[in-house]
Amino acid sequence: MNTHYAILGSGAVGGFYGARLQRSGQMVHFLLHSDYAHVCDNGLTVESIDGDFTLKPVNAYRTVQDMSRCDVIIIALKTVHNDLLSQLLPPLLKETSCILLLQNGVGVEEDIAKICGHQHKIISGLCFLCSNKIGPGHICHLDYGRITLGAYRPNYEPAGITADMERLATDFRQAGISVTLTEDLLEARWQKLLWNIPFNGLSVVLNANTDEIMANDSSRQLAEQLMQEVVLAAQACGRQLPAVFLQNMLIATANMKPYKTSMKLDYEAKRPLEIEAIFGKPLQIAARAGVYLPRISTLYQQLQFLDMRNTHLA
Amino acid sequence: MNTHYAILGSGAVGGFYGARLQRSGQMVHFLLHSDYAHVCDNGLTVESIDGDFTLKPVNAYRTVQDMSRCDVIIIALKTVHNDLLSQLLPPLLKETSCILLLQNGVGVEEDIAKICGHQHKIISGLCFLCSNKIGPGHICHLDYGRITLGAYRPNYEPAGITADMERLATDFRQAGISVTLTEDLLEARWQKLLWNIPFNGLSVVLNANTDEIMANDSSRQLAEQLMQEVVLAAQACGRQLPAVFLQNMLIATANMKPYKTSMKLDYEAKRPLEIEAIFGKPLQIAARAGVYLPRISTLYQQLQFLDMRNTHLA
Repeated sequence: MNTHYAILGSGAVGGFYGARLQRSGQMVHFLLHSDYAHVCDNGLTVESIDGDFTLKPVNAYRTVQDMSRCDVIIIALKTVHNDLLSQLLPPLLKETSCILLLQNGVGVEEDIAKICGHQHKIISGLCFLCSNKIGPGHICHLDYGRITLGAYRPNYEPAGITADMERLATDFRQAGISVTLTEDLLEARWQKLLWNIPFNGLSVVLNANTDEIMANDSSRQLAEQLMQEVVLAAQACGRQLPAVFLQNMLIATANMKPYKTSMKLDYEAKRPLEIEAIFGKPLQIAARAGVYLPRISTLYQQLQFLDMRNTHLA
Repeated sequence: MNTHYAILGSGAVGGFYGARLQRSGQMVHFLLHSDYAHVCDNGLTVESIDGDFTLKPVNAYRTVQDMSRCDVIIIALKTVHNDLLSQLLPPLLKETSCILLLQNGVGVEEDIAKICGHQHKIISGLCFLCSNKIGPGHICHLDYGRITLGAYRPNYEPAGITADMERLATDFRQAGISVTLTEDLLEARWQKLLWNIPFNGLSVVLNANTDEIMANDSSRQLAEQLMQEVVLAAQACGRQLPAVFLQNMLIATANMKPYKTSMKLDYEAKRPLEIEAIFGKPLQIAARAGVYLPRISTLYQQLQFLDMRNTHLA
């Protein structure tokens, strides 16, 4: 029997993975909002470095009340819309449902667990994906795509490799997506923040792509110092991010194609920024552990100012 | 006998004070560069809240070699051009010359003392002046104008009130400029940096005027935290900036007319920013004293990035 997937947030991330899962034979149900009519008529188009394709027909829904309860609910909304989840999630859950959270930051699982109750399994997928929605029902997949899966347990206790992770990995791999499994979700989250905090933040404040940040001595040094504060925060949670890992990430960033971060794309489109998940929560976690992160805090305050002005002007 | 003043840097600051001194009867000699021909033909025009006037004729010079040695040499260049001083100063100095330094930041006096030798008296004037050069030989004085004078001694030892300070104060007051004398120049410099560091820095990085910075909770809090780091740096130099002084400055800033800082004006005009005098030197001084100022340091690195990109694109 096929797995039934629900996609909440059928944009650059949810739309991409959902389309790949459906193309590989899974039953996928997309919740759509402004794109609903367009996708019903024209399907969902993915332009991709892995090959272009259009899904048609698409199981498209306007409301969760129209959808069936699903085996896997993929949450791929931006974290700024997570206040919607207390209404979107319950109608989709059955007893055995598993939640796959494809979101940035840290601490989001705790909020999801509060909504859906602890009987449901939450698995987080950390996406290394460069993909944009460029029009209604039209996604452009530019690079990467792999996912790191980790199971969530209260207080981010390492959960090991679970059967649900394995099942999801099988489906994603069948869809041509590279999957890594991690025994310790929180470690993976901090590893991802090690990049997201400096580069998402500086890309907006300095109005710069990754290549510019890496080419200037001052901004590169600042990126590294921000990373060192992330290392301190991770340590406060009992997770070690080795110095060599940080250095390799800097080298990889310097060598990769000039990259416009997702936060910069959001900023340019005057969408609200995922500041709380990526900056606010890490700062809260560190503060609770008595760790002071002044550079990240400075960046956070600057982003709050810019985000407020940007979305108010929108 | 009248005092002979030389003005190095006949822009918004040097042009304004020089014009006021000449109008009140002093002999003033202006070094001019691109505006030389225009000022010879049309004089120097000051539009001012205190009343508009045009100086004509102006003692204008193309090079310091054409000028006489003067009693007071006013240095009103932007600090980014201080590399020129080793050539500009010596031809103007006589044994009794006094140097009046009208520049931002901290630590600049030491550099000047190295150039002119310690036999010459250096007095610093901290200008609270809102004035712009809006065209060739055309200055627009928008607000304020008062000067705090303090004598420099090696290592910023408090110098008390000197006879030279009194003489300068008399001339400036006769020109209608309000003057305050300080016994401790370094204390006055830190007091001024208490405002310049947060507001000059954030105005550029956030592309914001003072009113916007003060109206947003995050940026206002960041400004205050930057000020607290300035307090730490001043303390490391043995100068106390009382908490009430900081709070009053914040209140005054919130209550003043929306103000575009001089650094923001420089940035918009693609002129190099006075980052070293206002940020680099304070950070060096603090670092030598073992004091870590991570928020100021973050702002400094961001400004270095923006300044480099801005002037390279110019």
